Amino acid sequence: MKTFDHMTTIEQMESDTAKLKEIACKVCAETWEDRNKSQTPHCKFGEDGICCKNCSMGPCRITAKAPRGICGADAHAIAGRNYLRTIAAGTASHSDHAREILHVLHSTSPDGSYKVRDEQKLLNLAKEWGVPTEGKDIYAVAHAVAEAGLEEFGKPFGFQRFIKRAPAERQKVWKEHDIEPRAIDREIATSLHMTHMGNTADAEVLVRQGLRTGLSNGWGGSMIGTEITDILFGTPTVRSTEGNLGVLEKDMVNIVVHGHDPAFSEMVVTAAEVKELVDYAKAKGSRGINIVGLCCTANEVAMRHGVRMAGNFLQQENAILTGAVEMMCVDVQCIFPALPALSDCFHTKFVTSSPIARIPGSIYVEFKTDTAFDQAKELIKMAIDNYQNRDASKLFIPESKNTAVVGYPCEQIIKHLDGVTNSHVDTLGSYRPAVDAIKAGVLRGAVGIVGCNNPRVRPDYSHFEIMKELLRNDILIVATGCAAQVATKAGLLNKDAKYLCGAGLRRVCELVDIPPILHMGACIDISRILLLVSGIAEDWGVATTQLPIIGCAPEWMSEKAVSIANYVVSSGIDVYLGIEPQVKGSSQMMELITEGTRKLTGAGYIINKEPHALVKSMIDGIEAKRAALGI
Amino acid sequence: MKTFDHMTTIEQMESDTAKLKEIACKVCAETWEDRNKSQTPHCKFGEDGICCKNCSMGPCRITAKAPRGICGADAHAIAGRNYLRTIAAGTASHSDHAREILHVLHSTSPDGSYKVRDEQKLLNLAKEWGVPTEGKDIYAVAHAVAEAGLEEFGKPFGFQRFIKRAPAERQKVWKEHDIEPRAIDREIATSLHMTHMGNTADAEVLVRQGLRTGLSNGWGGSMIGTEITDILFGTPTVRSTEGNLGVLEKDMVNIVVHGHDPAFSEMVVTAAEVKELVDYAKAKGSRGINIVGLCCTANEVAMRHGVRMAGNFLQQENAILTGAVEMMCVDVQCIFPALPALSDCFHTKFVTSSPIARIPGSIYVEFKTDTAFDQAKELIKMAIDNYQNRDASKLFIPESKNTAVVGYPCEQIIKHLDGVTNSHVDTLGSYRPAVDAIKAGVLRGAVGIVGCNNPRVRPDYSHFEIMKELLRNDILIVATGCAAQVATKAGLLNKDAKYLCGAGLRRVCELVDIPPILHMGACIDISRILLLVSGIAEDWGVATTQLPIIGCAPEWMSEKAVSIANYVVSSGIDVYLGIEPQVKGSSQMMELITEGTRKLTGAGYIINKEPHALVKSMIDGIEAKRAALGI
Repeated sequence: MKTFDHMTTIEQMESDTAKLKEIACKVCAETWEDRNKSQTPHCKFGEDGICCKNCSMGPCRITAKAPRGICGADAHAIAGRNYLRTIAAGTASHSDHAREILHVLHSTSPDGSYKVRDEQKLLNLAKEWGVPTEGKDIYAVAHAVAEAGLEEFGKPFGFQRFIKRAPAERQKVWKEHDIEPRAIDREIATSLHMTHMGNTADAEVLVRQGLRTGLSNGWGGSMIGTEITDILFGTPTVRSTEGNLGVLEKDMVNIVVHGHDPAFSEMVVTAAEVKELVDYAKAKGSRGINIVGLCCTANEVAMRHGVRMAGNFLQQENAILTGAVEMMCVDVQCIFPALPALSDCFHTKFVTSSPIARIPGSIYVEFKTDTAFDQAKELIKMAIDNYQNRDASKLFIPESKNTAVVGYPCEQIIKHLDGVTNSHVDTLGSYRPAVDAIKAGVLRGAVGIVGCNNPRVRPDYSHFEIMKELLRNDILIVATGCAAQVATKAGLLNKDAKYLCGAGLRRVCELVDIPPILHMGACIDISRILLLVSGIAEDWGVATTQLPIIGCAPEWMSEKAVSIANYVVSSGIDVYLGIEPQVKGSSQMMELITEGTRKLTGAGYIINKEPHALVKSMIDGIEAKRAALGI
Repeated sequence: MKTFDHMTTIEQMESDTAKLKEIACKVCAETWEDRNKSQTPHCKFGEDGICCKNCSMGPCRITAKAPRGICGADAHAIAGRNYLRTIAAGTASHSDHAREILHVLHSTSPDGSYKVRDEQKLLNLAKEWGVPTEGKDIYAVAHAVAEAGLEEFGKPFGFQRFIKRAPAERQKVWKEHDIEPRAIDREIATSLHMTHMGNTADAEVLVRQGLRTGLSNGWGGSMIGTEITDILFGTPTVRSTEGNLGVLEKDMVNIVVHGHDPAFSEMVVTAAEVKELVDYAKAKGSRGINIVGLCCTANEVAMRHGVRMAGNFLQQENAILTGAVEMMCVDVQCIFPALPALSDCFHTKFVTSSPIARIPGSIYVEFKTDTAFDQAKELIKMAIDNYQNRDASKLFIPESKNTAVVGYPCEQIIKHLDGVTNSHVDTLGSYRPAVDAIKAGVLRGAVGIVGCNNPRVRPDYSHFEIMKELLRNDILIVATGCAAQVATKAGLLNKDAKYLCGAGLRRVCELVDIPPILHMGACIDISRILLLVSGIAEDWGVATTQLPIIGCAPEWMSEKAVSIANYVVSSGIDVYLGIEPQVKGSSQMMELITEGTRKLTGAGYIINKEPHALVKSMIDGIEAKRAALGI
């Protein structure tokens, strides 16, 4: 049997990191590994979620001898409040990102920096939202849709519009348990209010508000963000690209775009194609301009332009340590404040662009929608001018990189499924073939693997081990965010990765012409997974809770991840976590997040830090769902 | 000279507490004093603001050996982020309270539980906001104004409407420094986003967003809350009342209303006047129904109904310890989750009423606008039925109480000032007489004393010492919240308290017929103080920063207080704090909050835990402002 012969192992990735750490030593640069060491062991109260700082009488910390804070809040109240605030902050982050994107849509014009790229998607959304389109210029429609979208953040009455996209069964559950999400920002503000000193101390109520606040992200902010980003920059389609630090080029001007909001990076990518700038780069002695991505910004530009991906969260410092980066341009979220000091050890110019993410020591160029393209060109020129400042003695670009096929939003998945649909018998445009494959057992089920890296576990390892095991067991994977990038680096987004799969999944990959892991986008695009699962449930005619489809975040670290986990659980999908949420100090909270939510939404968390044990429970979970369905 | 002979000293108050603590011992009840002891010493990292829990890689804590968190955030970034989140939570609390009040206004009807009481204020506001009124029923106007108010929380474009009420000089400052507050909930969500892992690490930027978020409270949520509450329940007028635990009656059914949002307590107060219920109470062997207030709910109902006030924040457990409380009904904020367990030691029924403040062990009666009055009557009946369950062996009501004159919103102050205006020379309806008195030096200046209690300092003592010293120095005081209640308990809201004042202030009190401390309402009513100071600045023709008028929070503890401090500083008024904000671990943050904001807004914090030193610096500050004005 043919094998998959170009997988990059974690050991190989770690060996690259070790070499880069040698350079770090040489230039006296500190990286997360050093800081992680000096921050370990962590404060146990914080880890367990039983430290309260919600008023200045404290901090109060729960122990056997001090079972209540000064106000009388116990471990359950404190852990519950901290947990809800985490969800509120995560929701705020995704949603505020979506708000920015809506403002960009509101600024579009035929001759501006930002245009409407997917007119059909805009018109569909206008129709869905009841925004009149007849006789209207497409930009007038865009602005009206932007305004309608912005209303979702603060409308005084009613619920998120997109919850109507969920299966009727889900909508009923949300109504029954009073967790239908109202205006996004209201859920955030109410969560902060509920957790203010002297308000809710009932963990169950806090968890319920967490579900609602999560829903306002998944079926609110994130879904709006994805939808509008597609309208602005095009719905992703299948593209070939490459990933890992080897995508940096020795003799090109390397510019890394890093963060989450593609409004900035789209301009940089487009500006890098301007002939005068390419010529200028060549005149300065380079082979041209090489734009690469980091973190979710990488996912965004890879999905839409095939831009290559330099790596994920815990690799952001490594990119600079190569000494080959002329400029790193960042937008928002997950950007180490350590980067300016690190850049100073090299010639790298570190540029921040958003009022949301101001970092001392950076060059701050506040991106404005009306001048965005010109600003991007200026920055690229600055990067080119910086090429000559590279220090050859500090240069080391690891060779590791792997090819990847990316770009599988729901539309693309359906297109592929249409390819295997017998159009004489079945209707096109459905998930029917996927349902049939699962029913037949050729596919045992599917897993959405998402989330970050976290120094609490060996970086990328949990992702990798879980992915390999699932593929072996005929379980299809969809991935976003840093998880998708692990797959990219390892080579698992390659169609040849089918040789790692069980016979059933391999056959599916061949027939449908897909890799066994589908790259669905950035973290905000987990909203695409919601629609995928909902679509499958509807085509199947069962509840989402019944499907052999689950979610997994093996190495999550951000507050966004907790918000996501809450909307996934609310959507009836079990979430397997490789990092414990910080509520361990409360038995009630532990029960609530693992079993308590199950009584409300039919889903909950399953937590295990050991990846092999976690993946075993995932496979068992999928098989149990199959058994319950009688398949 | 006559003296003020019925002041209650802190020592007398403490002696009452000591007796109640004996009862607590007897019934094995724990109170905040016990919990404070077991929670002390507090975590130094938390106290200093340099513990970061904003992602699950941590918690990270800053030390000399670990000067940066895993992501690279330093002490300044961490303390700054924690500080901004505190402001966001405080803003959310006041504003969400205002939102609820707007929804109550939206529910008003001529025959419903809630009606419009101050039609003129409603019509004025409609005019100010451009809401059409002509030919409209007052309730139609109310609903339209409610909708306009609700838009302030989430409107996609523009700034808070009420900032137009600020002096032009202030508006210019806010525009110049880009801190004009946008939609309230947007400022909250953006603050959470900015402080999410990998976003803003620049303390100066975080502090600036803190000012803007504070402004969205002071000139947004809080001002809306006050305005709409006046429309719903009437603008307060001068009333005589009493304060301290002695207002509980041995032979009456005692019901304590506690919290902040008067929508609930107004119904309880009104229901307690229903003849059938009073008769029922008498039939059950009592002398009738005695409603008393705690915390800001007390201030709300005292200002509008003369309802007597049982005490402030750290006295909430004492009320139950008297054994004389048949029922405590709470709404939102500053409610100890310790109260249900404490109530269980007595016959007291502890009732929660808001989905925002759910507390385990309470009787939960979710207040609904359409059934509110009936629900209130039910509760009163339940309290009456509980009267017979009192245990005489656990009964101890301290005798301490003092008389007080309360109810000085801006309208009332102007009315009093009109009384001393020579209407042949000057126009009525201005602060001119107050300005003249300050210019002449009869009054040296004014101080707004606000805020909570905090076990970090001797309860009520700092308030009390500062108040006495200011009065002696001819400095008028306006007070809200727990500060106003200290004054109430001590007797300083009595007109006789003029005998504690310097000759100038005494003369003013006599002429204008006011006590030397004006009770302006609840914490949310600090918005009234903003309007008062703005009005004085405008009548004077100087900037707010030039006025010998300052703010002081000697014993603050809540996140709301930090939000308030930020809008006061943004409004150009120095804030004197008796409790340190928890940012001490960052020299940059300490500089920013004391001096840095001064460069932006012309005001900052002055911090001193020792009340005598603090009040000295306050008087010095006022005299320095006078000197700068050449008066």
